[in-house]
Amino acid sequence: MKVAILGYGNIGRAAEMAVKAASDMELVGIFHHDDRIENIDADVVLVCTPTREVEPFASLLAKRGVCTVDSFDIHGEISSLRKTLMPVCQANKAVSIISAGWDPGSDSMVRALMSALMPDGTTYTNFGPGRSMGHTVAAKAIPGVKDALSMTLPAGKGVHNRHVYIELKDGYKFEDVKAALLRDDYFAHDKTEVELVESVAALNTTAHGVLIERDGIVGGHEGQHLDYGMRIDNPSLTGQFMVSCARAAVRMRDDGRYGAYTTIELAPIDLLLGGKEDIIKSLV
Amino acid sequence: MKVAILGYGNIGRAAEMAVKAASDMELVGIFHHDDRIENIDADVVLVCTPTREVEPFASLLAKRGVCTVDSFDIHGEISSLRKTLMPVCQANKAVSIISAGWDPGSDSMVRALMSALMPDGTTYTNFGPGRSMGHTVAAKAIPGVKDALSMTLPAGKGVHNRHVYIELKDGYKFEDVKAALLRDDYFAHDKTEVELVESVAALNTTAHGVLIERDGIVGGHEGQHLDYGMRIDNPSLTGQFMVSCARAAVRMRDDGRYGAYTTIELAPIDLLLGGKEDIIKSLV
Repeated sequence: MKVAILGYGNIGRAAEMAVKAASDMELVGIFHHDDRIENIDADVVLVCTPTREVEPFASLLAKRGVCTVDSFDIHGEISSLRKTLMPVCQANKAVSIISAGWDPGSDSMVRALMSALMPDGTTYTNFGPGRSMGHTVAAKAIPGVKDALSMTLPAGKGVHNRHVYIELKDGYKFEDVKAALLRDDYFAHDKTEVELVESVAALNTTAHGVLIERDGIVGGHEGQHLDYGMRIDNPSLTGQFMVSCARAAVRMRDDGRYGAYTTIELAPIDLLLGGKEDIIKSLV
Repeated sequence: MKVAILGYGNIGRAAEMAVKAASDMELVGIFHHDDRIENIDADVVLVCTPTREVEPFASLLAKRGVCTVDSFDIHGEISSLRKTLMPVCQANKAVSIISAGWDPGSDSMVRALMSALMPDGTTYTNFGPGRSMGHTVAAKAIPGVKDALSMTLPAGKGVHNRHVYIELKDGYKFEDVKAALLRDDYFAHDKTEVELVESVAALNTTAHGVLIERDGIVGGHEGQHLDYGMRIDNPSLTGQFMVSCARAAVRMRDDGRYGAYTTIELAPIDLLLGGKEDIIKSLV
């Protein structure tokens, strides 16, 4: 299958490695936001742009009958994105797999499976320790901050603390900058520590993780427990999973299952390289 | 949807509880092996018989256009069962979901997802601690054994030790019975301890567990790690997951997707009660 990449930041670069490693895929191009992608000759495009640009690009490509995969990550707007892309994909014989990072994405599949195994229970998704992209950007925007890194620290039961490392611009006082940061809406709701450091660059990391836990009752028995965890490189895992979803998109298109789908609407077998018989024999 | 249960052992009883708790299902009957089930009025039958009886019952029901779900558990024969049932289901507009317990079953879905996230790596499935049904039956068959319980103890990296509790029949010597048990093909390949106890019944348990671990490389980064674990009641979890798969079977039949499928061919969303929009909003 012919695969193209749109957007060449951390995730685009990780996706490039994963496409090149997939023996059933051919990388036919890497495009930047301002390139003309309308006439691209690809089965599927990995949309690795910022989240806000996903919908226009995915729509444009679906109209040309090109499948897409994105890692749109605003949880509250996923359903709306799916609704927008669904008729475009159906009318133009394309498949768009949306929100196919790790959360939303593979974690969503785990939460769905856990709910099927244990309908009565509570699920907590605990992120980190790892760098929060959104909070890091928010910290960098505080006046007086020269560089910043916001770490997400899991405090259990879906509660997260934050540890923010900052470098100061000349002429600013740490206490003033810290106070402004703690008032910011990104940080006002979580327990947040702010630490002044000489070099944020020396601390920076793309390692991340998650622990999903579901506790509840099965068959009248209390105390049943399910958990799922990852310790991974954040952009690499996102890029790899998008590439696996690209395989599913093309297969679903070839089966005539046109439309826009979240990851919980995919069968795991469609994500994997190889023939169904072989996969079933080795993994089931 | 109308659901019937065939077979009323531990799993059939657990399935009964799960069907009764599902607001979209009506339990229309519980059948035993010798009942006439050919003319059963159900959308889907949960085949809770011993594994060796799954194929004839599932074939018979598929021929009548009735969907089935089973927990067939011989890993090496799953692909063959699927091949046998596939044309029968397709010809009679039925869906059969096979090997839908926890391993094979939900664990298979986890292994497939882990492979999609990390194509280069090694997966180990560690069972227990918990009672092995097969090994317990094998221990009970050794001459001189009055009652037995064989526990599976995970020793890491997919290696398992066994701890077998036995009660003796009158006139047998423990050392002789122990030697015979250790020579049995079920136990000859694993590190096995045998312990003489006064009452096996006092020790018996249906609690079980699993830990699936995958370690490997993503995006050139070594040391990436995924894991999934459960501590659950064995028959309850199997019964519950079969019921969730019954929902998927009927939905796939209603979509015209006739055939025989393993769990890795199912979309997690189809396992869950409720409308797609609501599920996507709450779980993705």
